[in-house]
Amino acid sequence: MKIEVINGVNLNLLGSREKDIYGEKTLEQINSEIAQLCKQKGIEVTFFQSNIEGEICERIQQSTADGIVLNAGAYSHYSIAIRDAISGAKKRVVEVHISNLFAREEFRQKSVIAPVCLGTLCGFGYKGYLLAIESFLI
Amino acid sequence: MKIEVINGVNLNLLGSREKDIYGEKTLEQINSEIAQLCKQKGIEVTFFQSNIEGEICERIQQSTADGIVLNAGAYSHYSIAIRDAISGAKKRVVEVHISNLFAREEFRQKSVIAPVCLGTLCGFGYKGYLLAIESFLI
Amino acid sequence: MKIEVINGVNLNLLGSREKDIYGEKTLEQINSEIAQLCKQKGIEVTFFQSNIEGEICERIQQSTADGIVLNAGAYSHYSIAIRDAISGAKKRVVEVHISNLFAREEFRQKSVIAPVCLGTLCGFGYKGYLLAIESFLI
Amino acid sequence: MKIEVINGVNLNLLGSREKDIYGEKTLEQINSEIAQLCKQKGIEVTFFQSNIEGEICERIQQSTADGIVLNAGAYSHYSIAIRDAISGAKKRVVEVHISNLFAREEFRQKSVIAPVCLGTLCGFGYKGYLLAIESFLI
Amino acid sequence: MKIEVINGVNLNLLGSREKDIYGEKTLEQINSEIAQLCKQKGIEVTFFQSNIEGEICERIQQSTADGIVLNAGAYSHYSIAIRDAISGAKKRVVEVHISNLFAREEFRQKSVIAPVCLGTLCGFGYKGYLLAIESFLI
Amino acid sequence: MKIEVINGVNLNLLGSREKDIYGEKTLEQINSEIAQLCKQKGIEVTFFQSNIEGEICERIQQSTADGIVLNAGAYSHYSIAIRDAISGAKKRVVEVHISNLFAREEFRQKSVIAPVCLGTLCGFGYKGYLLAIESFLI
Amino acid sequence: MKIEVINGVNLNLLGSREKDIYGEKTLEQINSEIAQLCKQKGIEVTFFQSNIEGEICERIQQSTADGIVLNAGAYSHYSIAIRDAISGAKKRVVEVHISNLFAREEFRQKSVIAPVCLGTLCGFGYKGYLLAIESFLI
Amino acid sequence: MKIEVINGVNLNLLGSREKDIYGEKTLEQINSEIAQLCKQKGIEVTFFQSNIEGEICERIQQSTADGIVLNAGAYSHYSIAIRDAISGAKKRVVEVHISNLFAREEFRQKSVIAPVCLGTLCGFGYKGYLLAIESFLI
Amino acid sequence: MKIEVINGVNLNLLGSREKDIYGEKTLEQINSEIAQLCKQKGIEVTFFQSNIEGEICERIQQSTADGIVLNAGAYSHYSIAIRDAISGAKKRVVEVHISNLFAREEFRQKSVIAPVCLGTLCGFGYKGYLLAIESFLI
Amino acid sequence: MKIEVINGVNLNLLGSREKDIYGEKTLEQINSEIAQLCKQKGIEVTFFQSNIEGEICERIQQSTADGIVLNAGAYSHYSIAIRDAISGAKKRVVEVHISNLFAREEFRQKSVIAPVCLGTLCGFGYKGYLLAIESFLI
Amino acid sequence: MKIEVINGVNLNLLGSREKDIYGEKTLEQINSEIAQLCKQKGIEVTFFQSNIEGEICERIQQSTADGIVLNAGAYSHYSIAIRDAISGAKKRVVEVHISNLFAREEFRQKSVIAPVCLGTLCGFGYKGYLLAIESFLI
Amino acid sequence: MKIEVINGVNLNLLGSREKDIYGEKTLEQINSEIAQLCKQKGIEVTFFQSNIEGEICERIQQSTADGIVLNAGAYSHYSIAIRDAISGAKKRVVEVHISNLFAREEFRQKSVIAPVCLGTLCGFGYKGYLLAIESFLI
Repeated sequence: MKIEVINGVNLNLLGSREKDIYGEKTLEQINSEIAQLCKQKGIEVTFFQSNIEGEICERIQQSTADGIVLNAGAYSHYSIAIRDAISGAKKRVVEVHISNLFAREEFRQKSVIAPVCLGTLCGFGYKGYLLAIESFLI
Repeated sequence: MKIEVINGVNLNLLGSREKDIYGEKTLEQINSEIAQLCKQKGIEVTFFQSNIEGEICERIQQSTADGIVLNAGAYSHYSIAIRDAISGAKKRVVEVHISNLFAREEFRQKSVIAPVCLGTLCGFGYKGYLLAIESFLI
Repeated sequence: MKIEVINGVNLNLLGSREKDIYGEKTLEQINSEIAQLCKQKGIEVTFFQSNIEGEICERIQQSTADGIVLNAGAYSHYSIAIRDAISGAKKRVVEVHISNLFAREEFRQKSVIAPVCLGTLCGFGYKGYLLAIESFLI
Repeated sequence: MKIEVINGVNLNLLGSREKDIYGEKTLEQINSEIAQLCKQKGIEVTFFQSNIEGEICERIQQSTADGIVLNAGAYSHYSIAIRDAISGAKKRVVEVHISNLFAREEFRQKSVIAPVCLGTLCGFGYKGYLLAIESFLI
Repeated sequence: MKIEVINGVNLNLLGSREKDIYGEKTLEQINSEIAQLCKQKGIEVTFFQSNIEGEICERIQQSTADGIVLNAGAYSHYSIAIRDAISGAKKRVVEVHISNLFAREEFRQKSVIAPVCLGTLCGFGYKGYLLAIESFLI
Repeated sequence: MKIEVINGVNLNLLGSREKDIYGEKTLEQINSEIAQLCKQKGIEVTFFQSNIEGEICERIQQSTADGIVLNAGAYSHYSIAIRDAISGAKKRVVEVHISNLFAREEFRQKSVIAPVCLGTLCGFGYKGYLLAIESFLI
Repeated sequence: MKIEVINGVNLNLLGSREKDIYGEKTLEQINSEIAQLCKQKGIEVTFFQSNIEGEICERIQQSTADGIVLNAGAYSHYSIAIRDAISGAKKRVVEVHISNLFAREEFRQKSVIAPVCLGTLCGFGYKGYLLAIESFLI
Repeated sequence: MKIEVINGVNLNLLGSREKDIYGEKTLEQINSEIAQLCKQKGIEVTFFQSNIEGEICERIQQSTADGIVLNAGAYSHYSIAIRDAISGAKKRVVEVHISNLFAREEFRQKSVIAPVCLGTLCGFGYKGYLLAIESFLI
Repeated sequence: MKIEVINGVNLNLLGSREKDIYGEKTLEQINSEIAQLCKQKGIEVTFFQSNIEGEICERIQQSTADGIVLNAGAYSHYSIAIRDAISGAKKRVVEVHISNLFAREEFRQKSVIAPVCLGTLCGFGYKGYLLAIESFLI
Repeated sequence: MKIEVINGVNLNLLGSREKDIYGEKTLEQINSEIAQLCKQKGIEVTFFQSNIEGEICERIQQSTADGIVLNAGAYSHYSIAIRDAISGAKKRVVEVHISNLFAREEFRQKSVIAPVCLGTLCGFGYKGYLLAIESFLI
Repeated sequence: MKIEVINGVNLNLLGSREKDIYGEKTLEQINSEIAQLCKQKGIEVTFFQSNIEGEICERIQQSTADGIVLNAGAYSHYSIAIRDAISGAKKRVVEVHISNLFAREEFRQKSVIAPVCLGTLCGFGYKGYLLAIESFLI
Repeated sequence: MKIEVINGVNLNLLGSREKDIYGEKTLEQINSEIAQLCKQKGIEVTFFQSNIEGEICERIQQSTADGIVLNAGAYSHYSIAIRDAISGAKKRVVEVHISNLFAREEFRQKSVIAPVCLGTLCGFGYKGYLLAIESFLI
């Protein structure tokens, strides 16, 4: 099995960005933990991060993975483009958010991407990525 | 570690209720899989199901578990009572939904409980319960 | 044919409750008229009333009748739980309201249960129950 | 007793119009069944159908029947004119819809006519007309 | 000067229609008072009433009067067709309502026609027609 | 008969204020025309203008006139205080606006005062005041 | 191939009605251009215009054309009756508007008819009718 | 005089539940203070607490007290059932909330019960119960 | 202890203003009852009434009382100015309304002042002022 | 005449993306048909596709064509940036959508770009592009 | 050049009012800094503060300054009266707010005055007044 | 002190784009004036413009300036991505708009970026950039 982990806008700031909300780990550290878990489970994993909405769409379009773990960041709340990339390219996507969006501002409580994902999870900190990986296994 | 799995209204119908949405397994079968996982992980687990909103509140109030996995069913969409039971009793709750609520009717896309939970996950079928258990471990 | 008549919250007050809106007959008197009609038509009929949302759900789940005549009272306006009990248990339900809900407060003009019923009728006073019984026959 | 059955816009299409929603019977066939029931019950019945909102208003204004069974079709959702014809002419009107409006598009879930009717029923197929007739008798 | 008085749907019911709201006078009596005033002021006046939206549009389109006094009745609240007839035919229209719409149901408080009229008045009973005539003179 | 003409905020600017909307006449000139009409009709008339909401309320409270012609200016759109002064003091008030509010910004299309007035008229320029005076006579 | 061109309310005013919005050509002139194009393409074409909503419904119901080009005018924004005529009679309809509705008032930006048409076009002036004819050919 | 004090969902948590919002006193302690006040004033007082909506309805239905002091907790925001129990049973109810609901989340600022109560008070901490008792006396 | 009782717009009309809503007592009589209670309780009390929003703000700003009992009348529903006076001057304010606002028009059900008050009470008639005084004592 | 055809996000997926909605043809095939039509009509045509919102803006800014045929894909629903590029660069743009947006999800029924385009058409499948080309000719 | 600085309701509290939001300086101190800047720049400056909406309107009406710097305080959010004073008197006004309104409560994020001002600035503390003065110079 | 001036989408069109709204100056000319002011004030200034949302995010993330002057153009109205870049990277940003957004279309009156900026100003034409620079100095 092959999984791609795609992170969207501002997630390259992890580790320095509002730590009380997003935690202490850098994206690199998180990816390293994911890689370790995948290795353990015999999953091939690749990583991608971009701040540009259209590049995220393209990566989803072109992905050859069996499943995608996607944290689109702020784009989750308005990018119908990413939504359409997922449904247009018929990808199996699990949506992850580090913070519990439902405990935050009104505008963060709506993901336009969620309806075309297999499932969605939020609020588990960086461990949400690991759970998302697990979700493809169990 | 001690975890309580609480299921709300109509979840006693699992296995016969709209199988294309909620899957083939009965609540008993799901609980059995959860029990197996917990045993494996060294977690003590208890189960509770009720169709009565106030009884769910009371169970949450009285729970002595370290964490609660909660699928409140339809009550999730309007039971401020359950929400207040969680925050009032300061419980660590992970919210689970079997189906991807965001791909369903408008009124199912709002959980009034989510803001007071640690995290929330939906769309993973009955396996969501297992992921919720995992979330307390990783 | 077997029909169950289920009355929800505050309908035990019929006969004393706001008579200009709900009429002079007690629930007992109404049930008696229903029983008489059913006898005449060769229908087996049972009656249930509860003020507790979850108990109404359970009764719907467990009902073995060919059809249910349901007046959920105030729960009609917000009980997604009862709605899900009906669709989850695949029951054939006819919704009845004594008063014409559409001539009353805004919040009474929305039934969350109606969409999963076979049909709905309101405004015919207690005779609405009789019409609902008829609806299973003609 | 004298009852008038008034059908509004597009109801002349019954029998060919979206049969899965509105059924197989033509308006003529339905009227024939109504006539038979009325004859049986000793009720004098007349029929009227028009696609023109203003003509429906006029018929309601001029009706000398003791009761009107009205299916205004699509006009139900916006014709304050028909609503005012009913209340202005003080007619006793029972509103009928063939399909369960509450299980359809949002805009069909609001009848502007309902608040000035005695009662309203929907979802019983063409048999709703028969129940409406019954409602004047029981 | 030539003025046309156009009355819309259900205004042929005046004198019998909800007298506490619309007053005791029939449309004929009101028109007679208008005719008398006009005669006195040297105005040529014509009268038109229709319950059919499209006929009202056509009358407005074809009117050769210098001014139109229009009470479109219930159509005022939704007939963009009549609105467009007024602006399309560049007529000078004064809108009249017998009752004070703003003291009634929410849906009566919006006239879609008002924005394309010269002016609008309501709440003066049948005398509003007389004031509207005056408005073309002073 | 005694009538009071009350003008509210910014109406002291008439004659210089946005002339294309409010016309060329000053408030003094308008009052002079009103006075002339009243004299002709044998009506006693008094005038009041204030930019202060509370003073307008007090004047309404204290007025001993048989009728009040009121143009509350911008306060019309939000002053529940003036509304309550009218209904609290049981005054017979006719509301006037110089411009056709319904052809202007959304926020001007709502008068919170209108529901407690006898009637309301707008769009007739300064002549609206004269029509309002007439309304007490015919 | 047989096409019917149906024009709704106030479109008989074309050529004199707000020319900056709707252009200089009369409906007759436009129909003449359409006729010419159809002749050229070997299409049989018929024309219909009515200001009466119900008559437009009836024409759609009865049309035997392979396709309908429909400009319902103001009715487009609220006539669920016309919408239901189209879907009830299963007609292949292309919706045309002369002006770009999206650059105009809010209430013109919603067509209740569009969802049951094959396609819709607006903003191309009278040439939109020609494009609509073309749409049935290419 | 006989007064009943009814507390709804999660109010059994008082004293441990979010103390900064709801205060330090347990329900038992509060009831004790109420009892003391009532004794002093010669009022007979009874107490009831339930987490179950339907049980609260039933208690209200069956109460023989001259007045009810009701804190329905979270149910206040959506329980039309409790509202109908009050109006259906014609009880004289004073609504109490410990915290100032208007200074909290949007969804807490609406009580569906308030419109059928005699009066409502909030924000006075546990002393609100005492004030409510007083309100029946002064 | 020193308390100031501030009444806002139209409350000088008490005793004559809509007695079925606001009661028979004049403001003077109410203040006299308040004075009597205060004397009894050893509280120093002062009174202020104004119909002018800005004067109410100033009085709140300048008040040296330990607590303020405020009935801002209609201003309660929109005066952010008064709200800011309270929070800006850090006053301890109890909000009183004579009628039960929640049983009245929609626009009266929102107080913009409530969120910055200690507590709020309504529906107790003039006795609400007395309860408000009590609230500072118990 | 020179025309540019600009396709936005995910339109590079045409031919594989949800074929029941968007059809069987690839973008290359469609462009080829467009090229053929243009050649036939003597029009110079260029093509551009990008998944990046800002690149679409830039292409519009820099375009030297006499007209632009634009299908912005999902960006149509929220890209005020593209809207401003069109109006800022004063381009003559015809908006095309392959599917009938009005028969799809609510959020697809709003194009923020439409108001600044000459015209808009949707629902004609890939042939919409050809009609858009035609629109610049007839 | 002559500039008038007008401060509205509760701005006389500056220096004591919620210092974390509005800063430490009194209005007098701020005005003194403004005066110093103006002197330096050769601008004649006058100051006005009132808590009364109507007085602010009047001052704007009567101002002979070349420009007005206006902080209307809470009135900014609802005073259409002040808005109309500005547009009616054709004043060149720059709107200032001390705090960043957009980072505060929803109701503070709307200024009804802003649309008729030259420009608006907020969030710069008391220095916003100085920037507003500058805006008339650069 | 080091300031970065960041311009977003379509601002490269300044000088040719809708000059009546955005003025005559090109971005280059504006930047030149800014540079001159900064030189005068001893500030180090850098400039950046991009039409791509993600590039603007990245520039904000990477900026080493003490303050940022940001005109995000159309992205201001929906780019939660840019908002999060600002708060995530903890930058001190002053938001500038050339035109008075509040005097324009509804959708331009909301900036999703404003709440995380120090302050915001609009309506001062290109001089707003200079005022923003000043705001970091005074």
